[in-house]
Amino acid sequence: MNKDFMQRALEEAKKVIIDVPICAIIVKDGEIISLAVNEREKTGFVTSHAEILTLNIANKKLNNWRLNDCDMYVTLEPCPMCGWAIQNARIKNLYFGSYDHNYGAISTYNLFKNSSTKVFGGILEKECDEILKNYFDKLR
Amino acid sequence: MNKDFMQRALEEAKKVIIDVPICAIIVKDGEIISLAVNEREKTGFVTSHAEILTLNIANKKLNNWRLNDCDMYVTLEPCPMCGWAIQNARIKNLYFGSYDHNYGAISTYNLFKNSSTKVFGGILEKECDEILKNYFDKLR
Repeated sequence: MNKDFMQRALEEAKKVIIDVPICAIIVKDGEIISLAVNEREKTGFVTSHAEILTLNIANKKLNNWRLNDCDMYVTLEPCPMCGWAIQNARIKNLYFGSYDHNYGAISTYNLFKNSSTKVFGGILEKECDEILKNYFDKLR
Repeated sequence: MNKDFMQRALEEAKKVIIDVPICAIIVKDGEIISLAVNEREKTGFVTSHAEILTLNIANKKLNNWRLNDCDMYVTLEPCPMCGWAIQNARIKNLYFGSYDHNYGAISTYNLFKNSSTKVFGGILEKECDEILKNYFDKLR
């Protein structure tokens, strides 16, 4: 695990406009091969969460739906849609920042119980929480 | 519910090559606005399940990630990835054919318990089961 990748994700998440600020990064052999932010509102696609978009980019780059030797860093715990996609892609390690106790694939739905993907939550948690808090405070 | 749409999905699923034969259709005001088949192997994208692809087509067509007045027909019970996308898209009614007792968003994970999407399984179940059985028999 390398916190620099979560730090990078945080910086990219801060640039998000309109959408809930979330960024996901996929790393292979110590290098970022894919980076995307949440774009559901911007694009009008229900599936345009940061994680799905990074998976698409990585799948295209590696020409394979399997991403066995790849790790994902994401600023918020994935929802069930993204969580299932991540484990189906055989992501090796999933590192997330903030916990989502309402809709989290792990915290709420325990979807990784039979998965080969190892999950580590709470990476730079305070900073990840803060970006989301700022966003929702502004909405009010 | 109109079984003709499931019948159409069955016919399209039968044409699938390489991939597990699954087809999903989205219907609005009695008309098909989107149809897609499972293309994970064909395209190399882990997210290219029939349901995700139909949602993308419908989102683009309606220029909206919300599909409130739309129904989905799919030949196999959705996985958690697709199930979560379907309910996030506010699909009104979800009709599926075969049950998936191993990885089903409903049967296995009960992911629709707080959803506004109403779910009806077992539509043309025998025919839907048969297509899958034929596919897996051939693999052996």
